[in-house]
Amino acid sequence: MRAVGLITEYNPLHNGHRYHLQQAKQLSGADCTVAVMSGNWLQRGEPAILDKWTRAQLALQAGVDLVVELPVFYATQPAHLFARGGVEILGALGVDSLVFGAEHPELDFERLTTALAEHTAAFKHYNATYATQFNAALKAATGVTLTHANDMLSFCYYVANQRLAHPMTLIPIQRQHADHGEAAITDTHFASGTAVRKAAFAQQWDELAGVVPASTLHQLRTQRLQRWDDFWPLLQYQLLTASIAQSGSYDQMAEGLEYRMHEMAQTATDFDDFIHQVKSKRYTYTRLQRVATAALLQLTQTEVQRAQTQNYVRVLGFNTTGQAYLHQVKKTLSLPLYTKINKDLRLHALSLDYRAGRVYQLINGASQDLYRKPWRLDESFG
Amino acid sequence: MRAVGLITEYNPLHNGHRYHLQQAKQLSGADCTVAVMSGNWLQRGEPAILDKWTRAQLALQAGVDLVVELPVFYATQPAHLFARGGVEILGALGVDSLVFGAEHPELDFERLTTALAEHTAAFKHYNATYATQFNAALKAATGVTLTHANDMLSFCYYVANQRLAHPMTLIPIQRQHADHGEAAITDTHFASGTAVRKAAFAQQWDELAGVVPASTLHQLRTQRLQRWDDFWPLLQYQLLTASIAQSGSYDQMAEGLEYRMHEMAQTATDFDDFIHQVKSKRYTYTRLQRVATAALLQLTQTEVQRAQTQNYVRVLGFNTTGQAYLHQVKKTLSLPLYTKINKDLRLHALSLDYRAGRVYQLINGASQDLYRKPWRLDESFG
Repeated sequence: MRAVGLITEYNPLHNGHRYHLQQAKQLSGADCTVAVMSGNWLQRGEPAILDKWTRAQLALQAGVDLVVELPVFYATQPAHLFARGGVEILGALGVDSLVFGAEHPELDFERLTTALAEHTAAFKHYNATYATQFNAALKAATGVTLTHANDMLSFCYYVANQRLAHPMTLIPIQRQHADHGEAAITDTHFASGTAVRKAAFAQQWDELAGVVPASTLHQLRTQRLQRWDDFWPLLQYQLLTASIAQSGSYDQMAEGLEYRMHEMAQTATDFDDFIHQVKSKRYTYTRLQRVATAALLQLTQTEVQRAQTQNYVRVLGFNTTGQAYLHQVKKTLSLPLYTKINKDLRLHALSLDYRAGRVYQLINGASQDLYRKPWRLDESFG
Repeated sequence: MRAVGLITEYNPLHNGHRYHLQQAKQLSGADCTVAVMSGNWLQRGEPAILDKWTRAQLALQAGVDLVVELPVFYATQPAHLFARGGVEILGALGVDSLVFGAEHPELDFERLTTALAEHTAAFKHYNATYATQFNAALKAATGVTLTHANDMLSFCYYVANQRLAHPMTLIPIQRQHADHGEAAITDTHFASGTAVRKAAFAQQWDELAGVVPASTLHQLRTQRLQRWDDFWPLLQYQLLTASIAQSGSYDQMAEGLEYRMHEMAQTATDFDDFIHQVKSKRYTYTRLQRVATAALLQLTQTEVQRAQTQNYVRVLGFNTTGQAYLHQVKKTLSLPLYTKINKDLRLHALSLDYRAGRVYQLINGASQDLYRKPWRLDESFG
């Protein structure tokens, strides 16, 4: 059995994601689809609108065969680390190909990757703080600037894929229809994630019915929906009580930013107000939201970096095909496989995901790790 | 002008406190009464039912001439440190005498203090963790055990008073009527603080009318009343996200207790449930509540101990007499005098009180430091 991989957030799963899945099957000719999906905290530094279990269930209902979780220490990171985490997991699962959307799939990502790899000195500066600087290095090496989010992410998949012992076949596809940032539903079949979330909070069920599967619509209508403002009282409290040194230790906190965050937390009235007050030319909103996520979860740079060296395959759900595939690759897995949590995992290997889920649970109310086991589509949904 | 001091919590001010104040004036023959009052967090490790400004106002209305705040790093401490903080402030203010209630005012506290002072080795072990052990040392030295809370506290006043350059005259008086721990209002004029708070949360205004001044009743009826459960979501969040090392650094955290608190925070449903689950023979409820307070406010042992070496006089309010007294002693004050907060004080000298008030404000909604200035009774209340 051959598998195709997708690296996803499904926040929440909409028609664009179904198109992506269908393309992945068609272009790869694979027998099994594997989605690595962010858990309860996302790459843009925000809580998922629906929890990871609900989103995994929706993925299975949409036809994904196996859903595994992208750990929080990769999911809430800048593109190159987000990509690395996802590619590592797919690589460990022996996936043959990876299909992903790009604004410009015609770009010769292979050539760009090779050209940049030769500029190893510049490449070493590639981290969260210096993403712009990195793009400059790319431009110097290749003449190309990647200004679109998914072109950049696509490039990161190529870089990450080169690190694998057995690289996957990479298949970029054209991103269709709605832009990532489009805030309103303007099409009857497709809408951006932003537009879908906005409509869900506004309870515009009729508009949503056209752009998300029925199962997503049902979950949006019946589950508690999470957003940053739900967690703002906790974040504010944290920033008001943590020492400057402690805040300075949080992941992705830039030099001096902890003072600014402490100060703005004194008077900010909600999360948006807070982020707007902290915003300066130096930092993007996304970066600030990721730092806020690290502060909320008290994720320190030290523990995140340590965790990144100990990636794993955490199974959230599968159908019969996914189960057969998992069985096929189990013996050759190059990363630990976790299907259920126990006290040892909660305190050690899975501690950061557990913490991230436990905070999410404070608002969402549903256990995110304890007493949970992977969905089995054929049993759960008959 | 001569002054008499009282060390108080006024949580909230009731008829027993009025009796105490009246006795203090009468027995000391002083011209001015000075109350050192805990701020928003109290000696038993709990939030005050009314904020410090409201309680200071009530004290002035009851006839106290000058109200100063006992800083949080003394207010939320075991008896000997609570006593030391209060006595230091009164000493700095040149107060002549201190009047306080004891279950057995007839005890020869002077003799006990002297006898124990001679057992300096035992005395050096006197800290939060070894209060019981200390009582054993007292018994060995004097044959006396202080089993009543206010006898113990009275004794601590004697010990603290000996440290002053000019010790005050200490005047223990018999505690009247309601026991500290009495949970129901059983008398028509006096009730314990516990009974008063319970009745206030139950909105038993008729019962309360007999045992608290009209001004207290009015505030209880109109202000937001705080209790531990209000802060429980924040404490739980803190314990769920802080590292074990971080929790271990909180003030009064005993060896190993941080593990127990982390574990119980996973499943506890409210503050009482949490404390009951954490409780063991080794720790008293009061101790556990104080640790919980330190955890909530993220007060580390290091910063508390440092702050205790830098005590100050923070004025919350005065009437004409109190103002004249303050003017009289201003030049000879042996501790810094603060009447208003500014950015420097907020970040440094008053940072722990500011933090304690800022967290309290998250629930109570009223600014506790910024934009506040001492009450002046004659202006404020005409």
